[in-house]
Amino acid sequence: LAPLALLAGGGAMPRTVAEAAQRSGRRVIVLALTGIADPAWLAGYRHHWLSLGRYSRFKRLMRAEQCTDIVLIGSMVRPSLWRLRIDGGSLAILPRIAAAFRGGDNHLLSNLAKILEEDGFRLLGAHEVAPNILVPEGIMTRRTPSSRDRDDIAQGFALLRATGPFDIGQGAVVADRHVVAVEGAEGTDGMLARLLDMRRAGRVSFGDGRGVLIKAAKPGQDRRFDLPTVGPKTVEAAARAGLAGIAVAAGDALGVDQQEMIAAADRAGLFIAGVRAAP
Amino acid sequence: LAPLALLAGGGAMPRTVAEAAQRSGRRVIVLALTGIADPAWLAGYRHHWLSLGRYSRFKRLMRAEQCTDIVLIGSMVRPSLWRLRIDGGSLAILPRIAAAFRGGDNHLLSNLAKILEEDGFRLLGAHEVAPNILVPEGIMTRRTPSSRDRDDIAQGFALLRATGPFDIGQGAVVADRHVVAVEGAEGTDGMLARLLDMRRAGRVSFGDGRGVLIKAAKPGQDRRFDLPTVGPKTVEAAARAGLAGIAVAAGDALGVDQQEMIAAADRAGLFIAGVRAAP
Repeated sequence: LAPLALLAGGGAMPRTVAEAAQRSGRRVIVLALTGIADPAWLAGYRHHWLSLGRYSRFKRLMRAEQCTDIVLIGSMVRPSLWRLRIDGGSLAILPRIAAAFRGGDNHLLSNLAKILEEDGFRLLGAHEVAPNILVPEGIMTRRTPSSRDRDDIAQGFALLRATGPFDIGQGAVVADRHVVAVEGAEGTDGMLARLLDMRRAGRVSFGDGRGVLIKAAKPGQDRRFDLPTVGPKTVEAAARAGLAGIAVAAGDALGVDQQEMIAAADRAGLFIAGVRAAP
Repeated sequence: LAPLALLAGGGAMPRTVAEAAQRSGRRVIVLALTGIADPAWLAGYRHHWLSLGRYSRFKRLMRAEQCTDIVLIGSMVRPSLWRLRIDGGSLAILPRIAAAFRGGDNHLLSNLAKILEEDGFRLLGAHEVAPNILVPEGIMTRRTPSSRDRDDIAQGFALLRATGPFDIGQGAVVADRHVVAVEGAEGTDGMLARLLDMRRAGRVSFGDGRGVLIKAAKPGQDRRFDLPTVGPKTVEAAARAGLAGIAVAAGDALGVDQQEMIAAADRAGLFIAGVRAAP
């Protein structure tokens, strides 16, 4: 089997996927995004640094390493088109990149996927190379959602279904059936930090240990990229915000360090529930 | 005509409504919410201070002042039910208040309206006592929306229609057809401040003078309370966030100090558009 290229953005997820893919017997080459990927974990892997916009260099590296399969994984701050360092070979596809930049993230990424496929590469989802990385169905923690929490969870999933077509964030916080925060470009951590601020300023008044973070994929989302992610840091941020727990779309979200995440939730007294989306 | 009671929350809107109602020939009694209403403008009006939860005192004041009609106006931070100072006469309606606190703001306010009506009071909308307070249709500024801005405006109104049933914020920011922020309990000012933070952190990358703040009423909203509000402060916050302009649902939003708001927008080079909602 040819080695797997991992185009690695920020956060802890690229390492989790690299480890799982390697454990499954596949050799991994990391293409680490300059200024975005965390250098700390790369020592154990054959890797190259790559700046956004360097598409010619990307193709050269893929061919030199004899890679066809590629996984895009990790957080990527949406770059400014004008700040991209475009190399010579990227100029030809620049108009398509510019078009891809109009519209939401899904739009950007599907365009990128098309370009990759036309050049003979195969874009895979992280879950296709890292088994067990998808969040399973069921309650994972000692604490279980109350009937009030279940109301909040249902409300949150309904909201995310309604906002799905707009290609925005994949998270929301609902407390006492009241949607208190909707995720936009600030990301889940930004949204949870805002909740703490609002609580301090008296803008939200639900008690400690109430309210649920809901994370779901967009309806019809291409599961090869940008699936929602939860991990120990999500639990810490939710605990700081004083929430009761986290509900995640089962089979449609990636879990980073799931054992550690569950242990962190048990320590903080939060629940984590993998919820199968309504048909 | 009996005097009009104005239950005044925070911000500049209560003063605008009091002035307009008085100009129209109606005597105004202000019931100013303790800790929320701005004391600065009250000197010119007969007024009483009133704490949230003091429903018996509220009824006594209404009767003493021979008021039947009441307008609820101004920002109200959703109070913690447990922090309310409930007086004796409010105890009887406490279970209904507690029930009203479950669910969104609309739910809370419709329940309050029902209680007022059962007690013989008549709840009016600010626009019923203050003519010309609704934002009109049309472009109000020297700058006009570009075709790109119009795309963003359409996208924003479509999003707010989709989130309407969830009784959340009435604002969003769209740039290059990409929804970058959705308003929750943090309010419009909080959302715009976040946009500035995201821009500094490089999380959003649209250029200065791009992106539109969209404000709309919820579909089917009771127009007697909680209509979206814009004013000079909205313009200042939108300008700080680097936006191109503001689009407001015409006839469904209240304008504070509209002349000043338009002048502020012209100075900052922003557009303000009153947009009639799609049928």
